Amino acid sequence: MKETAPPRRLTAKGRATRARIVAAAAELVFAHGVARTGIDDVRRAAGVSASQLYHYFADKDELMRAVIAHQTDGVLEVQRPLLDHLDSFDALEQWRDVLVALQEERHCTGGCPIGSIAAELADEDPEARADLVAGFERWEAPIREGLARMRDRGDLRADTDTDALALALLAALQGGLLLTQTRRVTAPLRVALDTVLAQIRTHAA
Amino acid sequence: MKETAPPRRLTAKGRATRARIVAAAAELVFAHGVARTGIDDVRRAAGVSASQLYHYFADKDELMRAVIAHQTDGVLEVQRPLLDHLDSFDALEQWRDVLVALQEERHCTGGCPIGSIAAELADEDPEARADLVAGFERWEAPIREGLARMRDRGDLRADTDTDALALALLAALQGGLLLTQTRRVTAPLRVALDTVLAQIRTHAA
Repeated sequence: MKETAPPRRLTAKGRATRARIVAAAAELVFAHGVARTGIDDVRRAAGVSASQLYHYFADKDELMRAVIAHQTDGVLEVQRPLLDHLDSFDALEQWRDVLVALQEERHCTGGCPIGSIAAELADEDPEARADLVAGFERWEAPIREGLARMRDRGDLRADTDTDALALALLAALQGGLLLTQTRRVTAPLRVALDTVLAQIRTHAA
Repeated sequence: MKETAPPRRLTAKGRATRARIVAAAAELVFAHGVARTGIDDVRRAAGVSASQLYHYFADKDELMRAVIAHQTDGVLEVQRPLLDHLDSFDALEQWRDVLVALQEERHCTGGCPIGSIAAELADEDPEARADLVAGFERWEAPIREGLARMRDRGDLRADTDTDALALALLAALQGGLLLTQTRRVTAPLRVALDTVLAQIRTHAA
């Protein structure tokens, strides 16, 4: 998970082929879930032969771990640079707006690219679970660090448990996304995030 | 979804057989998800023949809809009578404790019996999605009504948006359960719920 780049021994062409396979797999998993995504579906979508695919991935489990890394990179990419500067109330609100707008664009389908894999694989595959833990941590860390900077700077009171608030924000985001996906309206995501943002404001110095 | 009881034309024995099939399917789905649960697995676990199973359910989709109703009944059952009396800060905290203790009992596995199906089926099956919407609503309604009673009684200020707080609680619960399942610790669930409970307290009259 820390090493999301492909193994170094690959040539540039090999890396490109591998990346194409992972991107095709990620798209299918996002649309239909892990269990409904077959190796043959991925192979066809990526336009590679079975032997090419198995050259890069020993089995489906290994491919799914690459998908988790790819989706984590994608989720963080969409939220940058906002995610690295979540250290003001304005920035937190802008971030919420970006997250809600993204769901509007997607017509509230898909849910969280990481969370939906977590719901499916956390109990099924210990290695995937470890990668999902690491993926969520990569997401939570910049939230936690932004809130800590607000506290250190004196925007939040010194006794504010910024770690707890960061975790609550990530949970609100996950639960809000799931309810938004199910109900096909963005209100759950917006209200869930707003409630935690309001709670953060009560700690304003 | 409103009619979770089996069709009335069934005999008592027929209802029992149908209930055994649904319970077996629900257990498999809770452990492995919808896509990984085959009709044959259900048939074996319930100890019925294929023709018996198809006597009660036209196809897997219909069986899964019965599973959603069954899991919703189960989730609500576990939380009753607390869920019907969420109209004091003490009751809300007791409810949180019950939810966290349940995850401890389960060693943080399984996640939410409804939420995990929602993550898998919301985009796949419009009829299942409608049932999941109804299931979440059956869960959210008593939370919403409890908070409204607190406001009407004067425990919460008159301008408190209790609907929004109820929705935020359900989202915190869903996101907290998913992160608890992934990380195998109850802290995410506890912290997510505590953060929304703290926010509810800021509205105390």
